[in-house]
Amino acid sequence: MKDSKAPLILVTNDDGVHAPGIKKLIEIVRPFGNVVVVAPDEGRSGMSHAITIKYPIRVHKLKEEPAFTLYSCSGTPVDCVKLAIDQLLPTKPDIILSGINHGSNSSISIVYSGTMAAAMEGVLHGIPSVGFSLLDYSIHADFSHTSLYIEEIVNNVLINGLPENICLNVNFPIASENAIKGLRICRQARGIWKGEYEKRTDPHKRDYFWLTGYFNNFEAEAADTDEWALQNNYISMVPVRVDLTSHSSIQKLKGFYEKIKV
Amino acid sequence: MKDSKAPLILVTNDDGVHAPGIKKLIEIVRPFGNVVVVAPDEGRSGMSHAITIKYPIRVHKLKEEPAFTLYSCSGTPVDCVKLAIDQLLPTKPDIILSGINHGSNSSISIVYSGTMAAAMEGVLHGIPSVGFSLLDYSIHADFSHTSLYIEEIVNNVLINGLPENICLNVNFPIASENAIKGLRICRQARGIWKGEYEKRTDPHKRDYFWLTGYFNNFEAEAADTDEWALQNNYISMVPVRVDLTSHSSIQKLKGFYEKIKV
Repeated sequence: MKDSKAPLILVTNDDGVHAPGIKKLIEIVRPFGNVVVVAPDEGRSGMSHAITIKYPIRVHKLKEEPAFTLYSCSGTPVDCVKLAIDQLLPTKPDIILSGINHGSNSSISIVYSGTMAAAMEGVLHGIPSVGFSLLDYSIHADFSHTSLYIEEIVNNVLINGLPENICLNVNFPIASENAIKGLRICRQARGIWKGEYEKRTDPHKRDYFWLTGYFNNFEAEAADTDEWALQNNYISMVPVRVDLTSHSSIQKLKGFYEKIKV
Repeated sequence: MKDSKAPLILVTNDDGVHAPGIKKLIEIVRPFGNVVVVAPDEGRSGMSHAITIKYPIRVHKLKEEPAFTLYSCSGTPVDCVKLAIDQLLPTKPDIILSGINHGSNSSISIVYSGTMAAAMEGVLHGIPSVGFSLLDYSIHADFSHTSLYIEEIVNNVLINGLPENICLNVNFPIASENAIKGLRICRQARGIWKGEYEKRTDPHKRDYFWLTGYFNNFEAEAADTDEWALQNNYISMVPVRVDLTSHSSIQKLKGFYEKIKV
């Protein structure tokens, strides 16, 4: 261990332990403390908050150096966080960092995202957690412009913590010639991934479907949303809560449903 | 088709198309209109909002009767909803019903639940959606006490709709000698599934882990929560929103993070 007072940092992602995005995140955060990586053994995008119930989970220690341990795990991103906390870490981590995801997790993409589910699982355990994503799906994506911002965010979260039951969803614009304008605290834009399935026929004459789709932003002009920030070359940061209750609907629904008598 | 003015009802679940819970739900809702079932070909509990990206999806029509069609699908519950809307249904459905789940989806279980993710996917498409669950994991669970309540709820949602961007998470207590006291509109209780992994060694001397765990309710005395309602033999109904933004945290975080200069 580097220093017993140094923070214990758990790193995970959903693109898998060998993805360039997680390698970049590890490089950025190693100077902050003792880093343990527990990440899927291959890409598990779109796994959301899925957990593995029917099958057992395997873990392999791939690397061990002073203040750094790297595990691959056969489970989902949320499995990685749960298993790390219950079995692999010496103590509860001081922070959980997830990413850097290859591709956007802004707007409604958060509900499909394994990267953000890992951060949300961290919050459930009372651990400050942040997910990072870059708006570039390429395996060769340029992450260089994210480093200094991630350093600042991690430093700030380690010092000040986060509001209770809240994690952060941070998305970066693609690297370009134009400097990033800064960081904006945003709300999740209302929108939808319209699923469009491509129907094909296999060599045995049976039909199958491939998921394709496009993002439909319902409020492209709303300047307080993450989508607007990213379109305008800002980094978006959305505080995310794990309580899904629509508190504002409770009173109205009481009138309809609490009077049901059968 | 039964009647072109009859509502089009999409039914799905996460326990699979052959589960007794979905059979019960189908039996209850068939009198309401034209029912199309698109459900996983086997149990897919704990899949949350996962979507299938890496593999193609297969669909099989298992049954076709007047005003009733039954498909099994190789994908997740959310895949079932997306594929139904894009490929299988003649028009956008009037309502999406998911369940009846074998096992509770109260409190934080909602984030792991494929049953509730299917309902949330429905809301994203602007379709009133309700998930139903029974607090009994048994394949032989007794669903008889749920019928009249589900009829009332479906009837009410078809007539009055639901608040915008909101779906309903309805959980039923286990059938017992004591009559259900009624239905309560609740908020999601704060709590956590503590993951506890059981480590075993396979015949080849390699370690593997099974997920086990227990639910830890952080606020067992709070009478406005779903957990309290269920413990006290009420049906719980939680209005669920798909906007995960913590609006109340935005202002505080601005002070910390929008001033970052790199």
